[in-house]
Amino acid sequence: MSTEATLLLTLDLVGTFAFALNGALTALRVTRLDIVGVVTLGMTTALGGGIIRDVLLGSLPPATFSDWRYLAVAAVGGLVAFVFGPGLDRLNTPITVLDAAGLSLFAVTGAAKALALGLGPAQAVLLGALTGVGGGTLRDVLIGQVPSVFRSGLYAIPALLGATATVVAIRLDAYGVATAVGAAVLCFTVRMLGVRFGWNAPMPRTPRAQRPHGG
Amino acid sequence: MSTEATLLLTLDLVGTFAFALNGALTALRVTRLDIVGVVTLGMTTALGGGIIRDVLLGSLPPATFSDWRYLAVAAVGGLVAFVFGPGLDRLNTPITVLDAAGLSLFAVTGAAKALALGLGPAQAVLLGALTGVGGGTLRDVLIGQVPSVFRSGLYAIPALLGATATVVAIRLDAYGVATAVGAAVLCFTVRMLGVRFGWNAPMPRTPRAQRPHGG
Amino acid sequence: MSTEATLLLTLDLVGTFAFALNGALTALRVTRLDIVGVVTLGMTTALGGGIIRDVLLGSLPPATFSDWRYLAVAAVGGLVAFVFGPGLDRLNTPITVLDAAGLSLFAVTGAAKALALGLGPAQAVLLGALTGVGGGTLRDVLIGQVPSVFRSGLYAIPALLGATATVVAIRLDAYGVATAVGAAVLCFTVRMLGVRFGWNAPMPRTPRAQRPHGG
Repeated sequence: MSTEATLLLTLDLVGTFAFALNGALTALRVTRLDIVGVVTLGMTTALGGGIIRDVLLGSLPPATFSDWRYLAVAAVGGLVAFVFGPGLDRLNTPITVLDAAGLSLFAVTGAAKALALGLGPAQAVLLGALTGVGGGTLRDVLIGQVPSVFRSGLYAIPALLGATATVVAIRLDAYGVATAVGAAVLCFTVRMLGVRFGWNAPMPRTPRAQRPHGG
Repeated sequence: MSTEATLLLTLDLVGTFAFALNGALTALRVTRLDIVGVVTLGMTTALGGGIIRDVLLGSLPPATFSDWRYLAVAAVGGLVAFVFGPGLDRLNTPITVLDAAGLSLFAVTGAAKALALGLGPAQAVLLGALTGVGGGTLRDVLIGQVPSVFRSGLYAIPALLGATATVVAIRLDAYGVATAVGAAVLCFTVRMLGVRFGWNAPMPRTPRAQRPHGG
Repeated sequence: MSTEATLLLTLDLVGTFAFALNGALTALRVTRLDIVGVVTLGMTTALGGGIIRDVLLGSLPPATFSDWRYLAVAAVGGLVAFVFGPGLDRLNTPITVLDAAGLSLFAVTGAAKALALGLGPAQAVLLGALTGVGGGTLRDVLIGQVPSVFRSGLYAIPALLGATATVVAIRLDAYGVATAVGAAVLCFTVRMLGVRFGWNAPMPRTPRAQRPHGG
């Protein structure tokens, strides 16, 4: 395996671990769960986005599901959350940073995979973003929450930006380590600025407005 | 492209737009969402049924996901709901009519596609109905509601009728523009009669009954 | 069809019926549903696990969806729940026993199918368990509940044990009627002991703990 491939694999596994840990901790804050629930929800957060992408691509069985290293790293992330639980809340900042790194990596590699399998640019951007946000969305649905990606913070938008930059670079035949890193850094930067300054995506002008009687 | 194919595509895109608009407005009435949530839920409502059908058929990537025109029309439907929001409630009646037209079209084309790919008649009826109701079901789950198709109104039953009529016509070698339109009109009529007269599907005799202590 | 195959098919259909009946009754206890909801949720409980497994395996259309006998038996299970409803609660014990039998059978056959299609042992164990618990999980999500498999009782763990025993037997070239029955009996016994003695999977030490102010 080349140095570059080893680096990419390592980064991908770190992102998977961060997603699993963060996902399991998020689930634990919301509802009562046993060990099966904590580990399953951590694994779902970590692997769900890539699995949804591969189902839509018809690339089955899904890549991360087939590779035992991803399964193992995701399971360990969930187990760490189970064992240490709320004690990990003091590590909130590093976990958020690693989660943003995972989001960036997944958006870039997800978009690149979709293009490589012959999908169009719009589809590749959507699948890249879905690779990044799909696992957390699935976890939120499984614990009875409206997915946070639909209502607050900036999470899907950085992923869409990173995926778009990736698609543009590939279409311009300028895709390589430098541009992939650039696309990931774009996603990461916007995500972390959003966290730092509490940015939200635009809301409708009158959320939850009641229909007037005469309407 | 033949006139007939152009007409079918146009109808399909109108149905997709109506589903996206109606789906996004429904989501907005239930919960607080940002632009990502409104557009995603509109697109999910419009495209989700066909995507679930194509996943079950193994016909991947899903047809409407691969065709940028469907993606674009669905995204515009969601954006219109985001921009105009509750102001569109005065258009409730035309939106309901277009939604019923979309349901009818999706049930007929979904059943025909399933048969064409070799599935049996019972499966084709189920997949036709699922094409019509799957997107709204997915949206309801994503916003934390028990899907309305499971509990009130007549929505799945007209879709099942339209899909059954389609399967019967194809099996009798009588499928063509006239019978396809007939099957869609059957679905549309039952749906609109249900809306007009407030019909519901049969309920169990004692819903939510408590188990007696001696039970 | 050999006697053995006939026996396996019969057992599988009995398990499917029990899952559909139990699943529809569970849904009825939680929320108001019409006939579409009761039958759909019964069928989802019975067929959902196998469908998710086959989607992940890329073995499409899913086996139980393609075979009208499974569809018919699952629909009848849902209809029986709709017609007799809470009156069936006196049959709680036999239904629980049949449900445990279905869980055991699905875990064993699911794991065996995954191995036969070339997946690794860890994936086969996960897919075996998912075949057993996936349908009920999907039903719980559709009725707005956090899946009970994530929080109480012993349901996933017996399925994991049965699937693991199956994978071990196949890898040791010792798989046959006797070992398959043994793996199913292992799952069934642990499940029924859990029901009898009210066992739960381990919980985190401080569930739902609030983050301390200084954290």
